[in-house]
Amino acid sequence: MNMTIRTVFFISDGTGITAETLGNGLLSQFENIEFRYVRYPFTDSMEKARECLQRIAQVRLKEDLQPIVIMTMMNAEISNCLCEADALFLDLFATFIAPLELSLGQRSTHSVGRSHGQDNREYAKRIAAMNFALSHDDGISAADLKSADVILVGVSRSGKTPTSLYLSLQFGLKAANYPLIPEDFERGCLPSCLLPYHNKLFGLTIAPEQLHRIREERRPHSHYASLKNCRTEVAFAESMMRRAGIAWFDMTSRSIEEMSVHLLQAINKKQD
Amino acid sequence: MNMTIRTVFFISDGTGITAETLGNGLLSQFENIEFRYVRYPFTDSMEKARECLQRIAQVRLKEDLQPIVIMTMMNAEISNCLCEADALFLDLFATFIAPLELSLGQRSTHSVGRSHGQDNREYAKRIAAMNFALSHDDGISAADLKSADVILVGVSRSGKTPTSLYLSLQFGLKAANYPLIPEDFERGCLPSCLLPYHNKLFGLTIAPEQLHRIREERRPHSHYASLKNCRTEVAFAESMMRRAGIAWFDMTSRSIEEMSVHLLQAINKKQD
Repeated sequence: MNMTIRTVFFISDGTGITAETLGNGLLSQFENIEFRYVRYPFTDSMEKARECLQRIAQVRLKEDLQPIVIMTMMNAEISNCLCEADALFLDLFATFIAPLELSLGQRSTHSVGRSHGQDNREYAKRIAAMNFALSHDDGISAADLKSADVILVGVSRSGKTPTSLYLSLQFGLKAANYPLIPEDFERGCLPSCLLPYHNKLFGLTIAPEQLHRIREERRPHSHYASLKNCRTEVAFAESMMRRAGIAWFDMTSRSIEEMSVHLLQAINKKQD
Repeated sequence: MNMTIRTVFFISDGTGITAETLGNGLLSQFENIEFRYVRYPFTDSMEKARECLQRIAQVRLKEDLQPIVIMTMMNAEISNCLCEADALFLDLFATFIAPLELSLGQRSTHSVGRSHGQDNREYAKRIAAMNFALSHDDGISAADLKSADVILVGVSRSGKTPTSLYLSLQFGLKAANYPLIPEDFERGCLPSCLLPYHNKLFGLTIAPEQLHRIREERRPHSHYASLKNCRTEVAFAESMMRRAGIAWFDMTSRSIEEMSVHLLQAINKKQD
């Protein structure tokens, strides 16, 4: 069977990341169609808009189907110009700004790029959090753990590093992470530097089979990667976390994004 | 002047990250209102939906204003249940899925969590890219640079690390980064290990005043952080990049997200 190909334009006067994020969510709901992405970020002039229009018209002719345009555009003049194209328009801001203006009782400022503007404290917080996550990755520093928002523990390759980085970049949380290693299992308890921070500790675990596959890619045919060793380490880690009374989550069938949101909820619940 | 406070619910049967991303973009367009976020991710049962309904009703009573609900919900039954609440609903999927179904000539699968599902190759690519970015941060390894999609150079604290990580996590690009250090300026040319990869090299620069502020936070009153030294390093780095014929971008008034999208465009243009 031939796959249908449809071209999707992401057009924005900002980065277009919002449009593409929603687009991914929406388009993943349709099967047997190959979506070809064309990105037009920073489309902030009539000249650039006309360039988009031409490209949309070309695709329209070539594919004999309406291209899909997913758009976040603050500037109404540019937005109106683009709407002349023969395409299916999903205009995120235009659709939702009007009801929001009504509900909030004010006009929107129609200013571009505010959502990740560099001036605000939220942005500075995210960058500081990311620097913290990098300098507290994989147990490299026990300094300043008291300022951590969360400390993740788990066996090597259970997903601690990507989860820590995502928590910092997306949510501005200072996330440290500590590996649980054979020495810890022999001693039978968590690294002592972590004990004062029990209320920030969360565990990650993973099915031994999946851990084995991940470790094999890194160090093929090693004792470290063997299914037997993975089984032993995971069993030790889980029993250690259980004894220490740490809440833990299973990475096995979760993406980093899903795990991060689960952790965010658990952290907020503890702070309530 | 008192800030108005409005409560915004992000409700999703997935992570809710898409809803929150769009919400941030939309709400940043309104001034003098403090938005209080309440997140209900993984709302995938009628029981959880009823819990949301209760919370929305409580807020409605307390604030005497309609709460705002920004929602990405695949399950129509749960979605309908939530719509009984007295709130302003911005329902991202419901709004856009219908026109897409019409244009694509098929029903959507209404399946949850596909946008960052763990099964797909896109996800594996992003994780591999992130591991690459971490193991090629700050010049720590020159191994395997030939498999990099992009190599960023710039003075210390010009934004290379956060940009590399964002490029990897968001776009699945293998991004390495190399600091330009005083030794390079004395020698007057780029690190030799980078020379074979001229077509992947991009520079980051930054206003000396901003660099000075960033470095002061890290090492206060040091020669490294002094405005004079920042001016010298930036001037050396820019002249070196100019001589080497490397395209470079200015971080000064750009967020990581904006810089990443600019780089993505430049990389794609080179590959065209």
